[in-house]
Amino acid sequence: MDLDSILQSVANTNGACAEEAQNRLDSLTKPRGSLGRLEEFARQLAAITGEKMPVLDKKVVFTFAGDHGVADEGVSAFPKEVTPQMVLNFMHGGAGINVLARHAGAEVVIVDIGVDHDFGDAPASLSFSRGGSGAFVSRKVVSGTKNMRRGPAMTRQEAEKCIEVGIELAGEYAGKGYHIFGTGDMGIANTTPSSAITSVVTGRPVEEITGRGTGIDDAAWKKKVQVIRDSIAVNRPDPSDPLDVLCKIGGAEIGGIAGLIVGAAANRVPVVIDGFISGAGALIAYLLEPKTRDYMFAAHVSQETGHKSVLEKLGLRPVLDLGLRLGEGTGAALAMPVIEAGLRIYREMATFAEAEVAESQQ
Amino acid sequence: MDLDSILQSVANTNGACAEEAQNRLDSLTKPRGSLGRLEEFARQLAAITGEKMPVLDKKVVFTFAGDHGVADEGVSAFPKEVTPQMVLNFMHGGAGINVLARHAGAEVVIVDIGVDHDFGDAPASLSFSRGGSGAFVSRKVVSGTKNMRRGPAMTRQEAEKCIEVGIELAGEYAGKGYHIFGTGDMGIANTTPSSAITSVVTGRPVEEITGRGTGIDDAAWKKKVQVIRDSIAVNRPDPSDPLDVLCKIGGAEIGGIAGLIVGAAANRVPVVIDGFISGAGALIAYLLEPKTRDYMFAAHVSQETGHKSVLEKLGLRPVLDLGLRLGEGTGAALAMPVIEAGLRIYREMATFAEAEVAESQQ
Repeated sequence: MDLDSILQSVANTNGACAEEAQNRLDSLTKPRGSLGRLEEFARQLAAITGEKMPVLDKKVVFTFAGDHGVADEGVSAFPKEVTPQMVLNFMHGGAGINVLARHAGAEVVIVDIGVDHDFGDAPASLSFSRGGSGAFVSRKVVSGTKNMRRGPAMTRQEAEKCIEVGIELAGEYAGKGYHIFGTGDMGIANTTPSSAITSVVTGRPVEEITGRGTGIDDAAWKKKVQVIRDSIAVNRPDPSDPLDVLCKIGGAEIGGIAGLIVGAAANRVPVVIDGFISGAGALIAYLLEPKTRDYMFAAHVSQETGHKSVLEKLGLRPVLDLGLRLGEGTGAALAMPVIEAGLRIYREMATFAEAEVAESQQ
Repeated sequence: MDLDSILQSVANTNGACAEEAQNRLDSLTKPRGSLGRLEEFARQLAAITGEKMPVLDKKVVFTFAGDHGVADEGVSAFPKEVTPQMVLNFMHGGAGINVLARHAGAEVVIVDIGVDHDFGDAPASLSFSRGGSGAFVSRKVVSGTKNMRRGPAMTRQEAEKCIEVGIELAGEYAGKGYHIFGTGDMGIANTTPSSAITSVVTGRPVEEITGRGTGIDDAAWKKKVQVIRDSIAVNRPDPSDPLDVLCKIGGAEIGGIAGLIVGAAANRVPVVIDGFISGAGALIAYLLEPKTRDYMFAAHVSQETGHKSVLEKLGLRPVLDLGLRLGEGTGAALAMPVIEAGLRIYREMATFAEAEVAESQQ
């Protein structure tokens, strides 16, 4: 696969479809504009898909998992073993993402793109005792990244390979007829590379962008800020070169997420971006091709400090604001039914003419 | 029915249950507090129901419909006939509330509590061609209120009767095993009494509380402000007497909503408050018995200007902020699945021990 040709295949969303959608929205039995952002969601879905009557029946959240060498610096409240432990929890259906994806009617695809653990012959197709289904996909590019405080987290080739994994999955699931994607992440210490990427891409100071992750104390937070500063100083990533940023101070799951977003845009599939780690992936996708932005929905604004700057840089307004900071794709799963509500209004409400209701006199 | 004895039966929510719920939430495979307000929703549901494992399977949105004499003053962009026309639209399943209730898995109960129209032998039980079901309930207290610019909108007895209708419906649906209620409204011109109530109860100036309703222009807005000022001056409602406020400057549907909330609290059923008109009803319920507040979820913050002051007075944080201003219960229906997501997390996630995941080291 040639990354450049995929990037070139990303087209503008369809403004004419959005306009037509707004005309229909204005004919429905409600005051004009009174369904606020639900109407915006319907318009954007029409623009993304280029279809007059988009459908959102088949939904899937991709949870990319990877380990981080920088965890050795003590930047997380949880030990590194939690990454594979949580992947197993995802496979058994007990994690937050399993519950919220089930609630949204979405499948969960767990992608081992960089976990430092051999999952052996894990089952590819999953069905959970409490309902819902999904898949486990082994696309390991690295067995954990290297410690970015001492040098690049990955090689440029590895970073590019991570993006390609995401693009391939997007193509595969678009081909299978899925209508909307969500992004998610799992990886102990991954707010550290995400903060580093956000600081470099937005130009905002590290201490402003760095949060508490899974819940570190003041001393650990100070150390985390220093580790991020050191990592940037050691690697000197070039903000005009997204692959350089990703390989030096990124992570495998962040690359996979970036690729999924690029692939979604190339296939005209709407993609719901979860929180801060997914946001770092979205920044990489946006730098690779700014048009990808128009295919994104920002699921929510995370409690993690740096996320506001990510959304600002992308120019996206979050669907939800519920103080979440779990990741995994939980916010994306939670936002999907709200976005879908906009489409259902658009598809299913009666027009003034159909319902014989009098229109506004002003 | 004796209103005073119902009000006295409203108990405090169960703090011990909320604490136990938080203990369980802290044992689930996620960093503590990382699901933000979803955890708050689970706690509150435990506190309201007094149950360790609450259930939200059966959901219902009550859309109270009434007409307003003050519509004669030209305060709305839509003609008064739209109230019965929209009620018929609700019965046929074509309105926003039908679509969003269906999306939430909730039934719609349409209550004619004050429409100035005879619906004849409308069917009591409704099933919609696009799916979903509901009921039409005729509990007409008035055939439209009187023009409050010239005197009281209702008698005190009528206002009390409206509240009783809401209380009775709450008792009936609690008895049938419904687990969560949503409030909704339909009534051309009803942002006018809602603004009047909000101004009187919060003490904020009329022009700050008065919005554009269904979409009036500047001239009509100025007139609306004057009409509300005149109505307050003519009637001199006593803010310490909620029935006085409701009868003089309220509406039948607002009274029904207030009663539904009181009845929900008396039956320990959580109630999701829609937007501005439902908020005016919630203010009346809160003045009748402040404990009702703890049984409320504020679905969203409306685009209608005065709604922020309502939420501030009630001390409620909205679940959603999507620029809605339709009413009907649409915001309540949209918020229900988000609140339910909090409960599902609580009920369905694995604990650290069950999933054999290591806990935080900090």
